[in-house]
Amino acid sequence: MPNPDLIPPGSAGEALTPYLHARAADFLRSLRHHTECGADTAGAEEATRGLRAAARRISGTLHTFRPLLDPAWADQLRAELAWLSGTLAAEHACTSRLVRLVDALARLSGGTATVPAPRSGGGSGAQSLAVGAARAGALLERQLTLARTRAHSAALQALGSSRFHAVADAVALLASEVPLGPAAAAPASEVLGPPAEVVERLLLDAVAALPMAPAVGGEQLDGPWHQVRLLLRLHRYAGEVRGAEPLLYEAGRALDRHRDAAEAAAAAATAARTPRIAPATAYALGVLHADQRHEVEAARYAFQRAWQRTAVTT
Amino acid sequence: MPNPDLIPPGSAGEALTPYLHARAADFLRSLRHHTECGADTAGAEEATRGLRAAARRISGTLHTFRPLLDPAWADQLRAELAWLSGTLAAEHACTSRLVRLVDALARLSGGTATVPAPRSGGGSGAQSLAVGAARAGALLERQLTLARTRAHSAALQALGSSRFHAVADAVALLASEVPLGPAAAAPASEVLGPPAEVVERLLLDAVAALPMAPAVGGEQLDGPWHQVRLLLRLHRYAGEVRGAEPLLYEAGRALDRHRDAAEAAAAAATAARTPRIAPATAYALGVLHADQRHEVEAARYAFQRAWQRTAVTT
Repeated sequence: MPNPDLIPPGSAGEALTPYLHARAADFLRSLRHHTECGADTAGAEEATRGLRAAARRISGTLHTFRPLLDPAWADQLRAELAWLSGTLAAEHACTSRLVRLVDALARLSGGTATVPAPRSGGGSGAQSLAVGAARAGALLERQLTLARTRAHSAALQALGSSRFHAVADAVALLASEVPLGPAAAAPASEVLGPPAEVVERLLLDAVAALPMAPAVGGEQLDGPWHQVRLLLRLHRYAGEVRGAEPLLYEAGRALDRHRDAAEAAAAAATAARTPRIAPATAYALGVLHADQRHEVEAARYAFQRAWQRTAVTT
Repeated sequence: MPNPDLIPPGSAGEALTPYLHARAADFLRSLRHHTECGADTAGAEEATRGLRAAARRISGTLHTFRPLLDPAWADQLRAELAWLSGTLAAEHACTSRLVRLVDALARLSGGTATVPAPRSGGGSGAQSLAVGAARAGALLERQLTLARTRAHSAALQALGSSRFHAVADAVALLASEVPLGPAAAAPASEVLGPPAEVVERLLLDAVAALPMAPAVGGEQLDGPWHQVRLLLRLHRYAGEVRGAEPLLYEAGRALDRHRDAAEAAAAAATAARTPRIAPATAYALGVLHADQRHEVEAARYAFQRAWQRTAVTT
């Protein structure tokens, strides 16, 4: 590893180093915060979010600027950070999925609609929905609470594991020293751009190839959208490294909503396959599934609008 | 009744008479066509559409320009035409509802989507939907075919009834003579406008008061939209009487789609209340219901766009 005192002024290494130092420090601060708060507190939740945010940024930077880093070290740490992020994300995902689905059920069964005079005649969808919505909500609560409890245990176990301690040690080292590769000695103006441009090109190509599909029945075409979400993040982090203004925030938020709605729709479909549920419950889950798939579609339009408004241009 | 030879030139009666004559002639031509084709033919269907279109226009004109007509005669004929239109409309409504729902089920279960490589992992909504979509389609086909058969018998019975023959006689009289009221002798430039403006004012007020509601869970707010559809028709027919260009065609089409989707959604909800259906069938009907409610919402936006583009202004 090069001696940090030997990083030439104006080099790519000089630009990368403070960003990675700062993100590593964020990681360590969140970890301390997590330990101090104790498990199962709001503070611990916030600390976990901080850990994940720092891990994502370190991991993204190692990925994008791999040509300027010690590649073996970068690949290894990136794999471990991906494991950690995935493990820590699951609990929060279960919680927010449940909140999303229960809110949607309340909305769909008219719980939050402004209610006028009762409609004349039968045949109301809302009426038959109310029957099943409560049971569908209880079923989802049972299933997602169980999943969340499992995710919580897995996260606690991960944070106590020697594998995690090795990641934390690697990040602690990163807070003081970045294992640069030989190319990092070249001027930032020459070598910092190309890796970021590779990501930008991948993003532009992926956006151009995004499939529009029917809201329901097009589930198999979600993948490219999730991929753009990840590329957009890499693009944002590469911008942060280079001191750019935060990029495409709205577009990124739309893709977060897209992912959340797609996963919520899948959770509703999964719940509908529970053996021996009542038809009214299944009906409510079908309405819920379609509703979330329409949220998926709405998020796609929101992304397209935000992208066209503020898109990076080639 | 005034002697038609006594209708003063330039009077409102002179403007109303040829329009009602022509629509009455349309009615009688469709009726002859229906008799010639024989029941259960494509020609009979077309003739029924012609009968309904003429009946709607006569009825609408009697309503809007009632102040210029013999009011007792107008009210009586209007009630009978409403009965006839309603009776004749039901069969076609069942057919198009079934087509709409079966098409939607095919789309929702991925039947018409462009299919890429199979998605990895389970949890697909489309997969569990395919299970129930076929059974939901069969159930809807059974229910709506039964309803259509009943509507068909009712229409045939109506067309053979003495009540219908009385309507046909009244329309035959209308083809040669319009029972005008005393006000119809006044100049068209003075008395033809105000009744049409009453309708326009009702329409504008109703559009301004249209509630936007959530797609699902807002079924009880459909009524005002259906009401605008009827007012828009009255407004269009009043324009026809006065020789105006066809008005707000797009907006009217959007409200037709709105009505069709709302009724299709209600049919899906009704089918889901069939006793002893499988959960997978109920799930597919739930997806279908929500899908049609989103079509309702899309039609509302389409109406608003068309309205803002071409709206009558106060």
